[in-house]
Amino acid sequence: MAEHFKQDSVTAVAVRIDAEHPHGVVFDPHQPQLRVTDLGAVRGDGVFETMYALQGHVRKVDAHLQRLRRSSTITEIGIPPEESWRAAVELGLEEFRVRGQLPEHLSIRLTATRGVDGEPASDDPQFAGTYWALFTQVSETMLENRAKPISVTLLDRGYDAGAAERAPWLLLSAKTLSYAVNMSALRWAKNHGFDDVIFTTSDGQILEAPTSTVLVLKKEADGPRLITPVLETGILPGTSQGAIFAAAEEAGWKLGYGPLTPEDLYDADHVWLCSSIRLATPVARIGDHELAVDEGYTAQLISFLEQDKPVNHPV
Amino acid sequence: MAEHFKQDSVTAVAVRIDAEHPHGVVFDPHQPQLRVTDLGAVRGDGVFETMYALQGHVRKVDAHLQRLRRSSTITEIGIPPEESWRAAVELGLEEFRVRGQLPEHLSIRLTATRGVDGEPASDDPQFAGTYWALFTQVSETMLENRAKPISVTLLDRGYDAGAAERAPWLLLSAKTLSYAVNMSALRWAKNHGFDDVIFTTSDGQILEAPTSTVLVLKKEADGPRLITPVLETGILPGTSQGAIFAAAEEAGWKLGYGPLTPEDLYDADHVWLCSSIRLATPVARIGDHELAVDEGYTAQLISFLEQDKPVNHPV
Repeated sequence: MAEHFKQDSVTAVAVRIDAEHPHGVVFDPHQPQLRVTDLGAVRGDGVFETMYALQGHVRKVDAHLQRLRRSSTITEIGIPPEESWRAAVELGLEEFRVRGQLPEHLSIRLTATRGVDGEPASDDPQFAGTYWALFTQVSETMLENRAKPISVTLLDRGYDAGAAERAPWLLLSAKTLSYAVNMSALRWAKNHGFDDVIFTTSDGQILEAPTSTVLVLKKEADGPRLITPVLETGILPGTSQGAIFAAAEEAGWKLGYGPLTPEDLYDADHVWLCSSIRLATPVARIGDHELAVDEGYTAQLISFLEQDKPVNHPV
Repeated sequence: MAEHFKQDSVTAVAVRIDAEHPHGVVFDPHQPQLRVTDLGAVRGDGVFETMYALQGHVRKVDAHLQRLRRSSTITEIGIPPEESWRAAVELGLEEFRVRGQLPEHLSIRLTATRGVDGEPASDDPQFAGTYWALFTQVSETMLENRAKPISVTLLDRGYDAGAAERAPWLLLSAKTLSYAVNMSALRWAKNHGFDDVIFTTSDGQILEAPTSTVLVLKKEADGPRLITPVLETGILPGTSQGAIFAAAEEAGWKLGYGPLTPEDLYDADHVWLCSSIRLATPVARIGDHELAVDEGYTAQLISFLEQDKPVNHPV
C-alpha cells in the first residue's frame, strides 16, 4: 500500500488555494479533501480548465486563466486572482522537482467550486469557494493515441442554435463541472462503435465535441483555410483552436468561422478534434462518411500548438 | 470551534456505504470525505435523491429508491442494493437518537457517484463508486416558507419537447449531480425578482421547476382535477406529485397528465410546486399573471402527502 502510494505520488500532485494560502499549499490527492456538502460534489456547481505542460512549460496559461475567469463570471462563482493560480501551478511543478522527477507530459486541471452551501470559506469572495489544481502525468495510452485517426458520431445536443443567446441561464459557454451529459455522450459513442462525438444543434449546426473543439481544413486555390464553428451557438471558445488559428494566420493560412453543417464536415478535406492534452486528433470517419487523413497537416497543427501563440477569440 | 462542531453535530449526520460497510458507517460531514479525483466532484457524474423524514418517519422510501435505481441505470453508475440504502438511512436516524436528539424535520440526501476515474472502490460494480447519505435538519426558514405563496418566472430549458425521446444521451429524466443549470436558473429568477422558476421547452411546453414538480388544479363540474406535465418531455417523475396523485385518486379526485402550455397555467384555478421537503408551495404569480391561492387546497395536498401512499407513475 505504501509502495503503491509512493509510486502514485510521483505521478499526481495537488495544490489547494484558500485565503490562508493564496499562493497554494500542496496536498495529497489520494486523501479525502472535499466535504460531501461541497456544491462542486453535490450539484456540479463549479468551473474548471485543463492545461497541458510539456517538460514543465505550461501552454496557453493566459487563455486558460481568461476562460476560467469567464466561466466564473457566468456562473457567479468567485475565484482567486490570476496570481494565485499561477503561483499554485508553479508550486505543483516545483513539488514534482523536489520529489526528484518532473514528468515530461503533465495534465494540470484547475477547479473552482462554489464551496459549501451557506458556509463560505472566506469573507473575501475571491476565496469563498473551494479551489485546487491537480497535476497528473499524461498516460502512455493517451500519448500513443494522440495522432491516431478516430471515428466520431454526430449526436444532437438538444439545443437549437439560438438557445445560448436566448437563454443565458443555460450557461452554455461556461466550462462547468456539470459534465454528466458530455460523459454520457462519450459512453453512447463507445457503445455504438465510435471513438468520440461531435455535438450538433437540434436544427443541424455543428457545435463541439464533449471535450474538444472541431477544426476543419479546406484546401483552396491559394492555400489551406482552417474553419471552426461560430461561438454564438454557445460552444466553448477553444484554447487549442485559438492557438492554432493564431499561428496559422502568421503562417499565411486563411481562417474562417462557421456556421457549419454536417455536410460541411463531409465535404471538408480534413477534420480534427483539438484539445489541450490530445492536441489535434484526425477524424477518419463521421458516422458512415469516410474522411481523408493527412499526417503532414496533423503535424503542422501540432507544431502550431508548440508555438504557444496568444489566443484571441472573435467575441 | 469545538463548541461550533458540537452544535452542528446534532443537526448533520452522514453515513457512507462501501463494500466493507454494505450497511453503512457513520462519518463526520464536516471533515473531508471525497477525493478531488472523484468523478462526482470533477464531472458532476453521479445521481441523487432527497427524502424527507418527519419525526423519524421517512416518506416515500420506495419511490425514491426506485428513482435512484432508474437514474443509476440511465447513467450506468453501479449502486448498492436497496437494503444497503435502507440500512444506511436507519443507521443515520439511530445516530441522531444516540446523540440524544432526533430532529423533527430531516432532509436525507442519498448520493452515488461514479467514484475515482480508473480506480473502482470495489470489484463489485454495486460498490465500485462513492455512496453516502447526508442527514440535515430542515431549517426554520424552510419550514416557515413552505406554504407561503411564491412568484415564478417561466424560463426556456433550451430543449424541445421531443429531445428526451430522440436523444437519450442527454440523460433528461435522470436525477444527476450536474445541476449547474438548475442553480443558475434559480439565481436568474432571484436576480429578476422571482422566487422560483418553471422551465419550458423551446417549443412552449411546461416542464418542471429546478427542484420541484408542477401541479395544476382545475375545478370541474364534478370536482377537482389535478394535472401534471407528461413525462415524455424528459422531466423527472415527481415522487411528491406521485404520492399526491395516489391519495387524491382514493379521495375521488380526477387526475390528468399534460402536455401543458403556459396558457394552461394562467387559466388554472391553482398551481403548486411540489417537492419532498417543501411539500406543496402555492404559486401566486407566473411572470405578470396573478394566480389565485387557496389555503384549503394547499392543506389538502399536504395531507395527501402525509398519507405516504405508494407512487405509481404512468411509464
